Amino acid sequence: MSVSTNATLAPAWIAVDWGSSNLRAWALDADDRVIAEASAPRGMLGLAPEAFEGALLEVIGDWLAPAAGSRPTEVLVCGMAGARQGWVEAAYLPLDAGATDTLGRLGGRLTPVTTRDARLRVRIVPGLCQHASQDGGEAFDVMRGEETQLFGLVARHPEFSGAVCLPGTHAKWARLEAGRITGFTTFMSGELYQLLSRDSVLKHSLHADDLADAAQHAAYLEGIDIAMATPERLSAELFGIRARDLLDPRLPVGERRGARLGARLSGLVLGLELAGATVTLAPGSRVVLIGAETLCHRYRIALEHRGFTVDEHANADMILAGLGRIHHTTLATP
Amino acid sequence: MSVSTNATLAPAWIAVDWGSSNLRAWALDADDRVIAEASAPRGMLGLAPEAFEGALLEVIGDWLAPAAGSRPTEVLVCGMAGARQGWVEAAYLPLDAGATDTLGRLGGRLTPVTTRDARLRVRIVPGLCQHASQDGGEAFDVMRGEETQLFGLVARHPEFSGAVCLPGTHAKWARLEAGRITGFTTFMSGELYQLLSRDSVLKHSLHADDLADAAQHAAYLEGIDIAMATPERLSAELFGIRARDLLDPRLPVGERRGARLGARLSGLVLGLELAGATVTLAPGSRVVLIGAETLCHRYRIALEHRGFTVDEHANADMILAGLGRIHHTTLATP
Repeated sequence: MSVSTNATLAPAWIAVDWGSSNLRAWALDADDRVIAEASAPRGMLGLAPEAFEGALLEVIGDWLAPAAGSRPTEVLVCGMAGARQGWVEAAYLPLDAGATDTLGRLGGRLTPVTTRDARLRVRIVPGLCQHASQDGGEAFDVMRGEETQLFGLVARHPEFSGAVCLPGTHAKWARLEAGRITGFTTFMSGELYQLLSRDSVLKHSLHADDLADAAQHAAYLEGIDIAMATPERLSAELFGIRARDLLDPRLPVGERRGARLGARLSGLVLGLELAGATVTLAPGSRVVLIGAETLCHRYRIALEHRGFTVDEHANADMILAGLGRIHHTTLATP
Repeated sequence: MSVSTNATLAPAWIAVDWGSSNLRAWALDADDRVIAEASAPRGMLGLAPEAFEGALLEVIGDWLAPAAGSRPTEVLVCGMAGARQGWVEAAYLPLDAGATDTLGRLGGRLTPVTTRDARLRVRIVPGLCQHASQDGGEAFDVMRGEETQLFGLVARHPEFSGAVCLPGTHAKWARLEAGRITGFTTFMSGELYQLLSRDSVLKHSLHADDLADAAQHAAYLEGIDIAMATPERLSAELFGIRARDLLDPRLPVGERRGARLGARLSGLVLGLELAGATVTLAPGSRVVLIGAETLCHRYRIALEHRGFTVDEHANADMILAGLGRIHHTTLATP
């Protein structure tokens, strides 16, 4: 557990991003300034329902005022803790691609969690679900956690229109118009990359890459370009990494060989995603990235190489902005 | 180990297909009639180099004549036993896409293996490698085992021209012209399907499918069509299987739900392969399938649905035809 604390005052409320693998929490004052933050590798996948409250208290217990007499502290949670296999299921809010403001309705659909500890008042933000449209324009899809980040983006930029990408194990690409979400698509690229690099025949040919190396950078972009130009050849290009390792006389030896091939694999898998995700975007248009810095950097390199302009936001900022907006609009509710 | 034996006479020679996971052997008389066959799950991946001879003797030992005085029995091996991590490395024969007959040169490039048991005379058929061409028409690629099956096809149909597909973990698509191989491409589809169905988030949504079920058959073909029409959406369609499981009201419950989604996944992954492999084929042209019956059937359904005509050959027949041709053309060599 990592803690950075300055909580001489009890927080006005607590924001929690509770994903599949990790739990992150922030203590905020009445002006939404962060007065403490903490995290632990206690993600939803590793917890039975009855273990969530204890895991949360391990991380935020020190921030809570003594129970007797005082009001409980508001804890707003987004992410996989609200999945069916999580703490308490927070039913998906269906995306309405029509005129209504789906993100603006998140705060009205919070799921309260009954806790043993009276110092807590926990509520979970719903995920979004999207049903397939008759015209095939949208497909079945779901998100949990990213809706809060998108709401944070809209809180900061109320009339935002354009494409937003949230990289990750299951990357989300959302389309926003005048601050309203009109549709989204999930790409399994992150998980695909993990499976291929850790568990497939390719694992013998790979080493961690570093895009600061010019040759690895070039191999990455070659992978991007190939997958975008000929996505139908993807599973052939994947085996081609193994064949190159066996045959290509131009490859260096040792770790640099595996790193070169690793960069190519990363490019191929992300290139397939970009082929699908950018097909409806105008050339040169802007893509907003929300996510972890390292992964966003990898996306930025590819997107800028393909002529797009990129804005980047840290996901912690967007989570706090999104949960903050929900917190303040729901303060009055019982 | 499974054995079917009728070896009252010592075999004239023995054919062995030694893959990553299994070892299959056939005892043949002087007219190449099968007089016994046997197999064992003793593939290359599970054997250290010094364990190969023992594994082979476990399977074919009963077929060998007593050592004293008699000539050793010819054992011709194709497949992964000749890989660098196998028994003895049988260097790849480079594919020459020009005028020369690459498959016809396999018999001249056998790698002899020194055995402790004097009753054996073991030789390993080389795999084929393909170097990237300057014009980008061919890419780096390798095969081990399939070259023998292709040579078997040519032994049976000397002037064969057209596309040949050998389904498997790493499916091979070869182009032959007048009995000569001009190029080939490996698709990792089989391994990709295994990774996705066993190790990814999708595993929770899947059950073994049965294409004899009309709805599963339709889901399979829908996956084929979608991947061929929009290969760039593959990693989105993959996550879509999870989302459908959560949201699609038309899906049945229980095992039939997972089977429907499993059929769709199978279709998506094979459809991506077909998108890449058939892009250069004329509509309605013939595809020869060589492989295991169940898997070939799955390919046949998809290919016929897409308007191709299909010929099917059992891989054992092609291996025996290929090794038989090599055996008889190399009998005279010392």
